[in-house]
Amino acid sequence: MRRDRESGTNPKAFQDRLPHNHCYGCGPDNPKGLRLKSYWSADDQSVARFTPEAWHCAGPQHFVNGGLIATLIDCHCVCTAAAAAYRDAGREIGEPPDFYYATAKLELEYQRPTPIDAELELTARILARTERTYVLSCELGARGKTCVSARIEAIRVPESWVHAAPA
Amino acid sequence: MRRDRESGTNPKAFQDRLPHNHCYGCGPDNPKGLRLKSYWSADDQSVARFTPEAWHCAGPQHFVNGGLIATLIDCHCVCTAAAAAYRDAGREIGEPPDFYYATAKLELEYQRPTPIDAELELTARILARTERTYVLSCELGARGKTCVSARIEAIRVPESWVHAAPA
Repeated sequence: MRRDRESGTNPKAFQDRLPHNHCYGCGPDNPKGLRLKSYWSADDQSVARFTPEAWHCAGPQHFVNGGLIATLIDCHCVCTAAAAAYRDAGREIGEPPDFYYATAKLELEYQRPTPIDAELELTARILARTERTYVLSCELGARGKTCVSARIEAIRVPESWVHAAPA
Repeated sequence: MRRDRESGTNPKAFQDRLPHNHCYGCGPDNPKGLRLKSYWSADDQSVARFTPEAWHCAGPQHFVNGGLIATLIDCHCVCTAAAAAYRDAGREIGEPPDFYYATAKLELEYQRPTPIDAELELTARILARTERTYVLSCELGARGKTCVSARIEAIRVPESWVHAAPA
């Protein structure tokens, strides 16, 4: 995969370079959000880490809520898609003109319960791309064991989405 | 579908009758959670309503975060599965012995952005059941339009999950 000017070595997270990001899951502009941070890894995947809070639990207090997990995976993968779009265009993340991606499909398999008293590790890989979409796989694990695996389709959306709701 | 003693007319939400529910998405015992409430509808589906807060936004502030949507759908459907299990066993929800369900698969299709300045409406339907699983479909909409459709597989888990993390 081309690296071009997006070198993979920029120490700032994808989310801190993508414009207009108020997202509950990963926006630096959202004071009440989860503020997930994603980065390229040396092996051309993307990685993120997250330490859950006690109130992020499932029904049982020692497991992480499945929706919280979906939120982390969704944000990690959509931001990876956007980062890849900049990279594939030969530009640094956030270098105009802007790219915006949204989730079209998200498929999650919960393989085992995710412990809440551990740092969660997310790893995503780009499986395919078309002009407007990226397809990614993602795994979320804890203590070296995969807990959830996912597949996501991220689709490029127009900049108008950022500024006003469509009719 | 059998109604038996679980009459469908109990005014208390599923989540307020299911035992040991600390869930971030719907647990009445979670002071920082979303506290979703689900009920049977007259046409044998289950329904829930949720009004998002401003910080539940996606990257753009006028749309709801996709992970928050996944959380609502997950909780609504898993609690519907548990409610159905009690109903199919001829017992009121929460009448011992307890049933516990967890999400095994969650598939979401985001058809259009979900406005944040609207009450969200969730409707779930049971598609199939086996001895240990329920398969459900779910739609989340706002202002009469479906924004997200989903399919979920909920699997019965042992009571031991409630009390201690498995090895």
